[in-house]
This record gives sequence, structure tokens and C-alpha cells, in this order.
Amino acid sequence: MEFQNWRHVFKVDPAKPMTDEVLEQICESGTDAIIVGGTDNVTIDNVLDLLVRIRRFTVPVVLEISNLESVTPGFDYYFIPTVLNSSNTTWVKDLHHQAIKEYGDIMMWDELFAEGYCILNADCKAAKVTEANTELDAEDVVAYARMAENLFNLPIFYLEYSGIYGNPNIVKDVQAVLENTRLFYGGGISNAEQAKEMAQSANTVVIGNIIYEDLKAALSTVKAVKEL
Amino acid sequence: MEFQNWRHVFKVDPAKPMTDEVLEQICESGTDAIIVGGTDNVTIDNVLDLLVRIRRFTVPVVLEISNLESVTPGFDYYFIPTVLNSSNTTWVKDLHHQAIKEYGDIMMWDELFAEGYCILNADCKAAKVTEANTELDAEDVVAYARMAENLFNLPIFYLEYSGIYGNPNIVKDVQAVLENTRLFYGGGISNAEQAKEMAQSANTVVIGNIIYEDLKAALSTVKAVKEL
Repeated sequence: MEFQNWRHVFKVDPAKPMTDEVLEQICESGTDAIIVGGTDNVTIDNVLDLLVRIRRFTVPVVLEISNLESVTPGFDYYFIPTVLNSSNTTWVKDLHHQAIKEYGDIMMWDELFAEGYCILNADCKAAKVTEANTELDAEDVVAYARMAENLFNLPIFYLEYSGIYGNPNIVKDVQAVLENTRLFYGGGISNAEQAKEMAQSANTVVIGNIIYEDLKAALSTVKAVKEL
Repeated sequence: MEFQNWRHVFKVDPAKPMTDEVLEQICESGTDAIIVGGTDNVTIDNVLDLLVRIRRFTVPVVLEISNLESVTPGFDYYFIPTVLNSSNTTWVKDLHHQAIKEYGDIMMWDELFAEGYCILNADCKAAKVTEANTELDAEDVVAYARMAENLFNLPIFYLEYSGIYGNPNIVKDVQAVLENTRLFYGGGISNAEQAKEMAQSANTVVIGNIIYEDLKAALSTVKAVKEL
């Protein structure tokens, strides 16, 4: 699958406004792909709006599904989070079951990929919503990674520090136990140095919030990762 | 993997006594494999006792892990249940995470296979222990099967009616949506006719309780399934 070679992706939030000028710079930055995804206020309208505007460029575009109402055809891939450290089955597999029950007959399985999320920032919105157990030591995180690869055969293990910069040693420990599953790292990357540091262990580095705070810094991460 | 060709297996419960004579007939019956597994009172002592006695024969032998304390080397495969219709993350992935955290470094991943269980008998012990939601229509069950194959890439989807004979139409519906994942059926098979009926849709038919109630009937299921 194409995404297995991705080193750098931008994640854009459909609930946050973005001018055409900014979007063009993101899409033409040399990044490997754009992930469309957010936690709050993701609607079919703002997802479609972004999709249409991103499709003017050649960069691959992924919808990371956050709710059923905002799913639409037209993306290259669909990523489906399953929160491995959630304490509520809703976020592990129940929403997924409902979706499959409703749309299983028309789903394009070869475009759908499950992401095993491990959420590590207790204060982020995603951790609260999914009732994630974020009190994890490095061994806990490594065990989730092994579970993702060996038990559930997930194509992606996603270390999500959401808003804070993570521990590079944990990212390194996780990469050491993964063979087929790809390691995505997301959270708190705000400059080229940090992007480079995380890309030394993670297969794919996800750049999110900084796009909205410091576009120039965000764009500088592309080259930093690609040069590695 | 060898188990992908299994059509018939006997499941023996380490907590239930079995004479050498009965065990020999089971092992030499022509069945494809013996699964060692139970819900209550499974201990390292009674698991080892069965393993040693089964190993006198050439039939492949699997440990279906019910608790960490009773796991021992020496089996051909280890099956690890994840209960897809449980409402408690403990039975979906938490026990698994604990086990991987503790033993991840020494696990033989190529001998371990996850089974996606769907438990359909509300009154059985397994349903109660795992807090399974057994109020499922055929579409629910089919959606769990699709989830097992497409989201979690599980090698086995296990329809468990535990103690009651299931609905052959549901087994048929499930088989129709599975491609790579193998369908195991277990529950209430008490004669050759029933074994044959379920084996028409299921890849593998599991014969359990009847071994202890009517050995002759249990043995008759082997030929019935193999003749199909």
C-alpha cells in the first residue's frame, strides 16, 4: 500500500478555517499526504469542502473517520481509529461494528485501514472522549504496539501525544518491536528539529496544530523529514 | 497455516476428568486436532496433565488460552480469544495487553493466533463472564464477522453457541462474507447429522460437551464431517 512509504503527512482539521493560499502551500509542500481529521464539529459539509479544495492538487488525501455522518466517497484511503488504550468498548470496536452493520455491503475494504491508537496525553480532548488510560509506562506502550501488530494485525500503530511533544525514547522502543505494522507519530511537533527527531524512529510523522499557529515552521518540517 | 485446513476438532476441558481409554479414542478418531480449553478451573496442573497424555498420539494439539496461569510451552499452537461482542474491554484486549506486557519478549508469535469470538448463548458461562451482548440478529453477527476479517485481520472467527445448537442460517450468512478468516462453529452438536449440517457452512466444526455425554455420538461426527 502506498501509505507504507509515507514519511511525512499533514493533518488538517475540517472544523478549522483555512484559506486557499495556506491550503495550497500545504498541498504543494512535498508532503506525502494530507489526512483530513479532527475530534469536534467534523461534519459532512466541512469534510466535503476540504476534500474538493484538496483535490485540485495531486497529493494523496485520506479521511480519518471521526464520526459516521461525515463519511463521503472521494478520498484515496479511509483510516479507522481503534483506541487500544480506551477503557470503553465504544472506541475499540462498537462504533466500528455499527458502521459495518449499516454500510458493510457497500464498503470498499481495500481502501479502509485500521489505525491502532495509543493516546498518551491525558489532557487532550481525544483522551477524555475515548476514556483512554494514559497512565502508561514505556513497557505498556510497547505491549500495545505488539498487540497491534501480532494480535490484531493492524497496518498502523499511531502514537498520539495530541498537543504535547512526546518522548522520543518511547517512539524508539516501539519501533524496535514493529515489523509489518507502520508507526505513526503525532503530537506537538512545532519545528524542523522535532520533526527530524521523531522521524528517526517513526515511519510517518504527522504534523497538525502547528499548521494553524506557524505555517512557516510547519512547512519546514517537510524538508527536515525528507532529508533524513 | 495447518489449522486453515482443519474441518473437525475436538475440544477437551482440562477441568473435566477423562480416562486414558476415552482420550485415546478421541485422539485416534481421525479428527484434525485437539483443542485444550475451558472456562472454569483451568490450571497449569490439569493443562499439563492433558498435554502429556495427548502427546502420546500424533494429532496436533492447541491450547486455547483461558488464563495466564495455565499457559505452558509444548503445544503446536496457542489460540487467544478476543470477545468481539463483549461490553468490557477486559475480554477484548486488556488481558491480552497484560500478557504481552509480561511475556512479550519470549512469545512465539508464529504459534499464536487470535480468535474473534462471537458468543450467542446468553445463558452460558462464557457469555456471563465476558459480559457479552448476545442480543444479536443475523446482521449483527455478520457485521462482527466482517470486523474480524477486515478491521482486525483475525485468522479465526469463532461462532460460539456454547451448549445450545445454533442457527445454521446464521452460520451460512457469516461464511458468505468471509474470505481469508476461517469460520469455526462450536455449540450443541450432539450427533453426526448436526455436525454435517454445520460443517456445510463452517470451515471447522468444534465438538465439545458431547464427548463427555455420549462418546459414541461424539466419535461419529468425525466421519460425518470428513465425508462432506
